[in-house]
Amino acid sequence: MNKTITSFHNPLIKQIVLLQEKSRERRKTSLFVIEGLREISLALKGGYKLKTMLFCPKIISEEKIFQLKKFTNNEAEFIEINLEIYEKLAYRSSTEGVLAIAQSKDLNIKNLKPQAKNLLIIIAEAPEKPGNIGALLRTADAANIDAVIIANPKTDMYNPNIIRSSVGCLFTNKIATGSTSEIISFLKEHNLNSYCAALQASVNYDTIDFKENTAIVVGTEATGLSEEWLKNSTQNIIIPMQGEIDSLNVSVAAGILIFEAKRQRGF
Amino acid sequence: MNKTITSFHNPLIKQIVLLQEKSRERRKTSLFVIEGLREISLALKGGYKLKTMLFCPKIISEEKIFQLKKFTNNEAEFIEINLEIYEKLAYRSSTEGVLAIAQSKDLNIKNLKPQAKNLLIIIAEAPEKPGNIGALLRTADAANIDAVIIANPKTDMYNPNIIRSSVGCLFTNKIATGSTSEIISFLKEHNLNSYCAALQASVNYDTIDFKENTAIVVGTEATGLSEEWLKNSTQNIIIPMQGEIDSLNVSVAAGILIFEAKRQRGF
Repeated sequence: MNKTITSFHNPLIKQIVLLQEKSRERRKTSLFVIEGLREISLALKGGYKLKTMLFCPKIISEEKIFQLKKFTNNEAEFIEINLEIYEKLAYRSSTEGVLAIAQSKDLNIKNLKPQAKNLLIIIAEAPEKPGNIGALLRTADAANIDAVIIANPKTDMYNPNIIRSSVGCLFTNKIATGSTSEIISFLKEHNLNSYCAALQASVNYDTIDFKENTAIVVGTEATGLSEEWLKNSTQNIIIPMQGEIDSLNVSVAAGILIFEAKRQRGF
Repeated sequence: MNKTITSFHNPLIKQIVLLQEKSRERRKTSLFVIEGLREISLALKGGYKLKTMLFCPKIISEEKIFQLKKFTNNEAEFIEINLEIYEKLAYRSSTEGVLAIAQSKDLNIKNLKPQAKNLLIIIAEAPEKPGNIGALLRTADAANIDAVIIANPKTDMYNPNIIRSSVGCLFTNKIATGSTSEIISFLKEHNLNSYCAALQASVNYDTIDFKENTAIVVGTEATGLSEEWLKNSTQNIIIPMQGEIDSLNVSVAAGILIFEAKRQRGF
């Protein structure tokens, strides 16, 4: 028999709400919440440990729960919740019927040990919108690049809006975070050329040879990259624009640059 | 002296809320709401007629209002509103202090008369998220392409979330909407090659010669393009993906394709 929770006042339900809403709670406990069958499966595949699985039997089949139990080696506790509680906790109403509490990974740049030759890495400094980080993670997955690094992050990567907008690509990519200084040291250590998207002293992005060790670096839409990046850039690059406004969405700009590198590398 | 509104119950204030919230109201009246100085300026530049300008003197300077009056040839009625009403109506709290009611344009494809040679057009079928349409309009502006066409639109283009996420690029692009059949007829009439992003019978996007008359066509993230598009495609194209999930955000995919065309055309 699975344990069952039927009250909003249950401490576990309260903790889930806290984990969904508060970055501080996620950091304090090293836990976060994943919603949806596909996202949970991708997290398991990506080596994440699940602590608790909450499911609503009105939505999800017994068979799927059985499979999930097998997939988690019976290490996670499975708890039944009723539809009312599920709908309170879930962002997508009554679609999947399952939520998990998972252990976060330490994403500090010091843990990133890239193995491949001719690395291709994307770095985004202080991106503001979770939706843009999610879109960037989807591009990084599709391009199968070696790492996604967030410099001076404004939120932790286990923000539910990032998980959701990445459609689970948070779990399929190698991800690291750190201060801009730490990341610049990392690039030097690994002999990575840094190509910083910037207006100053820049050349058209398609004139760069992206086949060598490459880090593509993009800044915020409002203020671009910090001085520290520009001072340490191998070469600043620009996407030539001819419009009235000239302001690409940051995840679109990153996609254009990443796929130019992929094109040069023959995909 | 400007007219002043201080009550939420004023019919004009009620109408603005309706125009912001209801596509039906926008269609019925051919009016829509623009927020922000930059957006209003771009709409004026793009030939939109403003009917009413509401400003909050606590936020916006007299000088700016004077300039706006000159810029609108004194054709719009200027009305003062207090901070409370402004903050109720505005999405971005207390930043700009100005809102306008503008007349929408008839965006039907029959009104689109492209003049240039070697056209470059992007077509998106039934895009679901206003944010993606906004990002696409930004890319289209930056690439200075000849038109953005939305096939079988799910919302009208004057949705406030589209205006906002386009950062005003709704007003700088040539835009048209229509049914998929109407748009396919338009492409034939103008001898446009259609390159449909699809998995079936597709070639890598970078093998296409985008220098000729080109329409790039993208579908929804969930279901891709409809059969009708695929049957009428000059050539299906694919962005090669090597990830776990292979699902680019639609505005990122469009950005990659548009800028490959731009690269081939020498920007």
